Amino acid sequence: MTMEFAAHCPWLSDDGPDTDVVMSCRVRLARNLARFPFVSRADEAQRKELCNIARQVVLSSNLAEGVIWVDLNHATARDRQLLVERHLISKNLAEADIPRAVAVSGDETLSVMVNEEDHLRMQLLAPGLRLVELVERINVVDDAIEAKVDYAFSPRWGYLTACPTNLGTGIRLSVMMHLPALKLTSEIDRVRRAAKDLHLAVRGYYGEGSESAGDFYQISNQVTLGSSEQDLLREFDQRVLPRIIEYEQHARRMLVDDNATLLDDRIHRALGTLRSARLLGAEEAMKLLSRLRLGVHLGRLPDLDITAINRLLLQVQPAHLQTYVAADLNSEQLREARATLMRQTLQ
Amino acid sequence: MTMEFAAHCPWLSDDGPDTDVVMSCRVRLARNLARFPFVSRADEAQRKELCNIARQVVLSSNLAEGVIWVDLNHATARDRQLLVERHLISKNLAEADIPRAVAVSGDETLSVMVNEEDHLRMQLLAPGLRLVELVERINVVDDAIEAKVDYAFSPRWGYLTACPTNLGTGIRLSVMMHLPALKLTSEIDRVRRAAKDLHLAVRGYYGEGSESAGDFYQISNQVTLGSSEQDLLREFDQRVLPRIIEYEQHARRMLVDDNATLLDDRIHRALGTLRSARLLGAEEAMKLLSRLRLGVHLGRLPDLDITAINRLLLQVQPAHLQTYVAADLNSEQLREARATLMRQTLQ
Repeated sequence: MTMEFAAHCPWLSDDGPDTDVVMSCRVRLARNLARFPFVSRADEAQRKELCNIARQVVLSSNLAEGVIWVDLNHATARDRQLLVERHLISKNLAEADIPRAVAVSGDETLSVMVNEEDHLRMQLLAPGLRLVELVERINVVDDAIEAKVDYAFSPRWGYLTACPTNLGTGIRLSVMMHLPALKLTSEIDRVRRAAKDLHLAVRGYYGEGSESAGDFYQISNQVTLGSSEQDLLREFDQRVLPRIIEYEQHARRMLVDDNATLLDDRIHRALGTLRSARLLGAEEAMKLLSRLRLGVHLGRLPDLDITAINRLLLQVQPAHLQTYVAADLNSEQLREARATLMRQTLQ
Repeated sequence: MTMEFAAHCPWLSDDGPDTDVVMSCRVRLARNLARFPFVSRADEAQRKELCNIARQVVLSSNLAEGVIWVDLNHATARDRQLLVERHLISKNLAEADIPRAVAVSGDETLSVMVNEEDHLRMQLLAPGLRLVELVERINVVDDAIEAKVDYAFSPRWGYLTACPTNLGTGIRLSVMMHLPALKLTSEIDRVRRAAKDLHLAVRGYYGEGSESAGDFYQISNQVTLGSSEQDLLREFDQRVLPRIIEYEQHARRMLVDDNATLLDDRIHRALGTLRSARLLGAEEAMKLLSRLRLGVHLGRLPDLDITAINRLLLQVQPAHLQTYVAADLNSEQLREARATLMRQTLQ
């Protein structure tokens, strides 16, 4: 496989509802085939067969434009890392040593992971908050696949999944939120507590176990059992998220009203550092880009655009940087390449 | 009195020996008049008389071009602070509430403080390391004054001074050194220890009790008794200072040789912050300007010149900033004015 280095992801554009706060949203379905054990209990031959079946089904189902099949066992470590950085596969799938694969649509909005925790994990990504649309679209994908395979399903429990938290609908709704103002005003902890009370998970930029680099928080439902897809969607999309969005927007207005000079100081220092540094770590880069994103959305950096910043958020990641310069880089070289990219892009 | 806001001090120029490390040097003589008690033991009338005598002697002695007399009791607090920031009077003299004054030459290289710790404290300042020249010149000044007054002098102890550390020659030699590389490599503590062993004082930018803002260290002899002026001068100027200068220069070469990218990162981040910040404290400003000074002297910032940086080191101080904007500023406004000045100057 050769992954082309795309200069941008469609879902990193600013073209969606509430993109000032919701960078992207994602819907994921967990599905397993009826006549196979779960991945962790399957043997090597069964896992291989699962890959073969999935390949045939996915490539013949016309799920989306330009779907490519990536056999992860033959992909390079850098290509696997590229897919992780583009949120197309999980870190676990990238690092596993069993037969596994992923199908990715040409516009990278759809991906279907094979032999992650479940046999199939299909996801749709889009910029901004449009979960309703994504749920409709993923159901079309799901139906197309279900037309060709038997899913493990129980009339009592719903779709059977390897982890009980996914039982039932097997759906996970998640959003990547940018909450810099709540972070600056230290109100983010209240959001975390409220989310916990609502049985939502708050994770970092790369999901489970990752830190909230650059004030980006991935918020998702944790439990699927006992709720219909529509109930979950309504609660999350109509009630919870609008309140967090409003809370962040309010905090942003407060930052402007209370001390616009202090806000501008933070924003312009970030830009100054990004335009000047010769060495830049990934975490610092994301933190500084987060400040720029805030600045653009508050109209305080009229010469920058969000898509360029979103693209940089992707490009500062190690595999993207190495693909960009077409070389393997050690950590010191990565810091240098990252700083160079920033200076070139932001001058 | 109205102090004109000078855009530059002559002694802040880069026109002198070893200005890469020695920003400026200073020679000071402490003198007391024979028939008066020391300042601390004199009464109000005697202190006034001392001012009158000094005024008459200094203004009639043709000590330098364009000498002005500043009655500090009638100067505004801001003007007194301006004189402190220009190193023309001490903080103690600025804040005292007794009759006191200072004479300053037109080029600000000479100043004569009246009723500081001693009746007269005359000093000469120059850029770079040229203590030999300054000692010659201060002796001419001293002789001219001594031709008109009787100094308190003991054949056994030499010139009598209020503090025993100044007894004898009453001379203090000092240099303002810029030691950023020794600071970055953490070798500055060895310099401090060595200086202590040699009975030298290492102080901050504003002398006694001040911190080493921006990697600037004022180094001076502490004891005058028992050494001739020439012995002190030879030891300090020919033996001690050349070693510190060489030590700093070596550390700078090491910074370039070991990791020029890391060095450039520090230098360019400093420039980026100074060009971008909207709020800037005095200490941070000096630290960042110190990085620029290092960068220019190592040839890594070809578009900047040292005189401009030296001037900014002066202009970031509160009284200079307030004079520049012609307004009284609170601490928040000072931070804003400082950042504005930096952006305007360094674009």
